Amino acid sequence: MSATSRLPEYLVKMQKELDRAMEFWLKNSHDEEYGGFFTCLGKDGKRFDDLKYCWLQGRQVWMYSKLYNSIPRFHTEEVLQAARAGGEFLMKHVKSSDGMKCNFLLTRDGKPVKIQRQIFSESFYLVGLAELARATKDDKYKKEAIAMMDQIVHWIRVDGSGLGRPALSGAPPVNALAVSMTCIYLIKELTWDDPGLYEKYAELEQWSLDQTLAHVQRQGSVVLEIVSTDGKELPGSQGRIMNPGHAIEAGWFLLQLAVDRKDDKLKKIALENFMINPYLLGWDKEHGGLFAFLDADGLSPTQLEWNMKLWWAHNEALISFLMAYKETKDEQYLKYFEQVFDYSFKHFADLDSDHGEWFGYLTQAGTINQDIKGGPFKGCFHVPRCFMMCEEMLRELLDKK
Amino acid sequence: MSATSRLPEYLVKMQKELDRAMEFWLKNSHDEEYGGFFTCLGKDGKRFDDLKYCWLQGRQVWMYSKLYNSIPRFHTEEVLQAARAGGEFLMKHVKSSDGMKCNFLLTRDGKPVKIQRQIFSESFYLVGLAELARATKDDKYKKEAIAMMDQIVHWIRVDGSGLGRPALSGAPPVNALAVSMTCIYLIKELTWDDPGLYEKYAELEQWSLDQTLAHVQRQGSVVLEIVSTDGKELPGSQGRIMNPGHAIEAGWFLLQLAVDRKDDKLKKIALENFMINPYLLGWDKEHGGLFAFLDADGLSPTQLEWNMKLWWAHNEALISFLMAYKETKDEQYLKYFEQVFDYSFKHFADLDSDHGEWFGYLTQAGTINQDIKGGPFKGCFHVPRCFMMCEEMLRELLDKK
Repeated sequence: MSATSRLPEYLVKMQKELDRAMEFWLKNSHDEEYGGFFTCLGKDGKRFDDLKYCWLQGRQVWMYSKLYNSIPRFHTEEVLQAARAGGEFLMKHVKSSDGMKCNFLLTRDGKPVKIQRQIFSESFYLVGLAELARATKDDKYKKEAIAMMDQIVHWIRVDGSGLGRPALSGAPPVNALAVSMTCIYLIKELTWDDPGLYEKYAELEQWSLDQTLAHVQRQGSVVLEIVSTDGKELPGSQGRIMNPGHAIEAGWFLLQLAVDRKDDKLKKIALENFMINPYLLGWDKEHGGLFAFLDADGLSPTQLEWNMKLWWAHNEALISFLMAYKETKDEQYLKYFEQVFDYSFKHFADLDSDHGEWFGYLTQAGTINQDIKGGPFKGCFHVPRCFMMCEEMLRELLDKK
Repeated sequence: MSATSRLPEYLVKMQKELDRAMEFWLKNSHDEEYGGFFTCLGKDGKRFDDLKYCWLQGRQVWMYSKLYNSIPRFHTEEVLQAARAGGEFLMKHVKSSDGMKCNFLLTRDGKPVKIQRQIFSESFYLVGLAELARATKDDKYKKEAIAMMDQIVHWIRVDGSGLGRPALSGAPPVNALAVSMTCIYLIKELTWDDPGLYEKYAELEQWSLDQTLAHVQRQGSVVLEIVSTDGKELPGSQGRIMNPGHAIEAGWFLLQLAVDRKDDKLKKIALENFMINPYLLGWDKEHGGLFAFLDADGLSPTQLEWNMKLWWAHNEALISFLMAYKETKDEQYLKYFEQVFDYSFKHFADLDSDHGEWFGYLTQAGTINQDIKGGPFKGCFHVPRCFMMCEEMLRELLDKK
């Protein structure tokens, strides 16, 4: 049986589960009183905490806006209004009152609880507003997104002291995959429909690409999360840590870039170094699923959750392998897709309940470790983004067949 | 069969395993070149990272000094010299160059990598030097410990801004069990042999005790990790979180205090609220072992490792239940001790190898999740402290019998 025979089944599943996931968020996550989104939600959507995690505020604004802009059945007043309300919450509360630094955690009514000395609250603030600008045709959101982009670039490339980290002599700057791949992602989100604006960031994109590719180490066999700024492996646990889901996610960022640039060499790197190798290393041969962390020397990662199966890595793998198949028509990628699809819908999905959205955290053996659908790091993002992108890719593949 | 019949067996085991654990650290953890201790050590003692975690530097100085001072077979020049070298490393590198704030993480040669905005590096700095002063009879270590104590008290009770945390309107001060119980511990470690110095901290001790007791909530049925400064349960996940091992550890701190004060009411609280209740709630009825975290409403804790079994909690439970038996002669406590003893030596201990010291991290089912003996948070402390204290208590119990 050809690996393509299940494509229609995949499309039906992705459509249906996207609808169920979005129903979960539309029904349970809106804070009608203070604005913004609740994300600490149990399996039936019941709220277990009122705190608002800011990565997830920006991501949900992006998700709603993107669905409104891309998928006709989500082009509704309800989705648009919720996206706009979320965007206003971002600008009013997520951005701190004294500058461009964003909060990490807020009380329900928007008071700051925690600020990370990182660029990620800011990154999701940016992509949320950039997509909201497309949904609302309101240029103020795009202007704000560009201003934040320029601030992030300043922190990364000119002077990071505004992030609040003390300069410590034992902690020289490093090249973190999370930062370099995020840059590629931010440029794409901000500029894909604006070639003039893209030009402004073209040099940054090349720099981010070089930084990202520097994570391929040990004769191309591994992608390491943290390397030195001159592209060398760092000593100790930090230097050996691998996050297969992260590498695979970077894979589809790079594949998109390779397709945009018609760069076959980059395409090969995206497919082989960032998708296949991390997948083959990261897939648990005994129980199935992708490990959260691995040590490149095969030692015990010190991260306690190293062998847990985290939902988002599986979402990224589904996107990556379907995109790889779409761009190459090599059925091997569909076989990887099938393996992740079957594992994920068996273990993460909550198919027999009235409530969509996946569980997030499984034990190594695949049992549910936390029976929540949303939490401090899981919101309305990876699951619906994956379903939406897969639906679109499958639609294209099946129309073409 | 009386629960007391195994006491001689326990004594033999504690002695033998203390020797094996200390052999592991004496052999593998000393950095002869730069001073200080390596703690990132695999199951056979092989080093997997050179970084030096400062909590563990202070703790190891304390452990060596305490063993030197208390247990004749460790009253050796080797142990004393290692303790002294560790103490010099503390004063030279763990304390930051510009004030009393301590580093959290150092490079091998002592350069700062990370600073926590907490009081714990400082706390273990203090106890390490206080015990080293007793071992060396060198008053400079005691003076330094007292200076650090006064700094910590200032941060906790007068002005915490020196810790470096920004004041955020959504994050009012809270009463964290980790801080209040640590105060009790620090006063005891610093002053047990110096009644004059104790007087200086008597009011602080009463305050710390009141703060600690405020964690007993819900009609005495639970100990919550974080409560409001006026002793109320806080909303959300943070307010519901329980750490059974932590509560049980506080139990023996409080029991010591109750014995010192001849306070029967406090003794009852220590035994019932801090030992028995958290133990009965926290013990995994299916697989055995103490859960790392629980939610007081029975929801999924958001901590990914909530259902893992962490070594230190079991060390604390062994100390608590043996101390409870010693102070009450109620054999029920020996039955709890037996349950923890049998589980722990079956699952954490590495009995069939040439290398002592326990593994630290088990899955819920009791299998080894990380095959390391030391790491960023596990050093030469909980295991040998437990064995040493149990050996001493068992010796006393058996002499008296």
